[in-house]
Amino acid sequence: MPETPRRTHRLPGSRYGNRPTMKDVAARAGVGLKTVSRVVNGEPGVTPETERRVQEAIEALGFRRNDSARVLRKGRTASVGLVLEDLADPFYGPLSRAVEEVARAHGALLINGSSAEDAEREQELVLALCARRVDGLVVIPAGDDHRYLEPELRAGVATVFVDRPAGRIDADVVVSDNYGGARDGVAHLIAHGHRRIGFIGDMPGIHTASERLRGYRAAMEDAGIPVEDSWMSLGVTDPGRVRRATEEMLSRPDPVTAVFTGNNRVTVTVIRVLSERSRPVALVGFDDIELADLLRPGLTVVAQDSAALGRTAAERLFRQLDGDPLAPERIELPTKLITRGSGELPPAD
Amino acid sequence: MPETPRRTHRLPGSRYGNRPTMKDVAARAGVGLKTVSRVVNGEPGVTPETERRVQEAIEALGFRRNDSARVLRKGRTASVGLVLEDLADPFYGPLSRAVEEVARAHGALLINGSSAEDAEREQELVLALCARRVDGLVVIPAGDDHRYLEPELRAGVATVFVDRPAGRIDADVVVSDNYGGARDGVAHLIAHGHRRIGFIGDMPGIHTASERLRGYRAAMEDAGIPVEDSWMSLGVTDPGRVRRATEEMLSRPDPVTAVFTGNNRVTVTVIRVLSERSRPVALVGFDDIELADLLRPGLTVVAQDSAALGRTAAERLFRQLDGDPLAPERIELPTKLITRGSGELPPAD
Repeated sequence: MPETPRRTHRLPGSRYGNRPTMKDVAARAGVGLKTVSRVVNGEPGVTPETERRVQEAIEALGFRRNDSARVLRKGRTASVGLVLEDLADPFYGPLSRAVEEVARAHGALLINGSSAEDAEREQELVLALCARRVDGLVVIPAGDDHRYLEPELRAGVATVFVDRPAGRIDADVVVSDNYGGARDGVAHLIAHGHRRIGFIGDMPGIHTASERLRGYRAAMEDAGIPVEDSWMSLGVTDPGRVRRATEEMLSRPDPVTAVFTGNNRVTVTVIRVLSERSRPVALVGFDDIELADLLRPGLTVVAQDSAALGRTAAERLFRQLDGDPLAPERIELPTKLITRGSGELPPAD
Repeated sequence: MPETPRRTHRLPGSRYGNRPTMKDVAARAGVGLKTVSRVVNGEPGVTPETERRVQEAIEALGFRRNDSARVLRKGRTASVGLVLEDLADPFYGPLSRAVEEVARAHGALLINGSSAEDAEREQELVLALCARRVDGLVVIPAGDDHRYLEPELRAGVATVFVDRPAGRIDADVVVSDNYGGARDGVAHLIAHGHRRIGFIGDMPGIHTASERLRGYRAAMEDAGIPVEDSWMSLGVTDPGRVRRATEEMLSRPDPVTAVFTGNNRVTVTVIRVLSERSRPVALVGFDDIELADLLRPGLTVVAQDSAALGRTAAERLFRQLDGDPLAPERIELPTKLITRGSGELPPAD
């Protein structure tokens, strides 16, 4: 940000002024600076009467200890940075809240930002957080090369990757069983008689997208069904792209009779497209969605436990910070198939 | 947080060590500390050859400038704190993202935390952010007395309240037209023939909840319909409480024929209860919900523009930070009635 003057806020009945310092407190209380410092930091050697005078001056002036200064003295900040992909994606809501709850239980503040699925922005944000001396980082990575973090890791910044693994460094990782979950979801469609099954997913460079595609391929191969290229579409999750991909698969001479969607952003658009068509098409989505049970048919999903991902990652982070001599580990959480109707529709032909 | 040793991360092929300092860089480059400082801060007076040597040492050691130290020197941090109510409430997703986008456009980092609708936790979080010298605060308040912020405002911390007003201090506020939106939504039900209309809202101490209740009462009064106490239920938004309130209103000898819900958390539970009943009950909800158009019937809502709330608040904040001599203002954004079916059902009797 450019150098701009701070605005002094107009308050009824208050003087304009700058932040009071320990020196102001000392002057008002009629004591030395060292005495104020003792009171502020809870150190011994101050009589109750003097402490009372200092406390009164602190309240009268609205003095507050500058924690940034304490950070520098102690080399720690009691804060955790969380870098996620999109603050507005509902998948990250319960994950963020879980990380915050664990941080809070450890007396730490959560600092939060999003990469917008841009590796450069992820790196910029992570390094900005490190420069602010966060104690630890929970990162949902956008990029696939995290060697830029090596100096920070060496300097002792605790780090856990969540949802997607770290690239080219050795670090703790907490992920869902994306491969197994997708394989189960597609096998479920096959068990209901489908053979021409479409897969519509996120960009192939994203780990979760490629793992879920791998699960789709495995289920098809297990059932001896050769996959046609036109059944698979990976790309950005914006509604326009997903709509075109869905309509293409459904408009072919030999249309797919079922669709497996790679994440919640894709699913909401596919539901919308299918709802406009008269011929029923089966659907299983990766990720649960609010109100999925109230759609007609209800939406069958492979659900991740987004809160458990956040909680597990944050707990692991604080074990690192507590000095537990842990070797970097990959923790995989199971997914759950929830059947509600859309995944149990038979093939229309 | 308790004092715990930092964990030194094991990296393949790397030495264990602490964060490198400017002194380390100076030693490696064979120059004085002042020269390193000049290079790091982009100041003149260094030959290209020396600058190259210093840059090499910086890269080799993985040195990074300590921004916390710069904060103290310059008295500013280029960061914005956002205090919201619940990280997992989808209403706050687009709002958070909008604040982040504006902050980012101004080169500032977003620091984010939630109050869990607890006034004490709000105060604790706000003061923790101030102690970290955020430049500005966007606050969705849980409490109704913000005089604790006066010393910070005097010290020049820019502050904008959003979604709900500040209590007992003079500050910028950006809110939706909660009163007018609720009045329009209830008037819509009355226009479709309803007279016995229930209101199920959030806790009455929350400004938005009481404003929406006021809008409900106004619409009923405008239509000359006396409101019975049993038609109104305000309280926590957890599914159990909302379910009981809904079932009570529907099980009376003279049941309500329509319900107006005070926010999205209430709406999702009421939809669920209504879906279990054979007799149709009209519903208008405050706040839009993803997939609301795909429910049967589609959900009629009074929609707020959550992203516009965040964007307007953040832009106002940066105008304060840019030194614009603004008097505190209350900015009200309009709501929008979106009809999709549930609010147009006629009375069942």
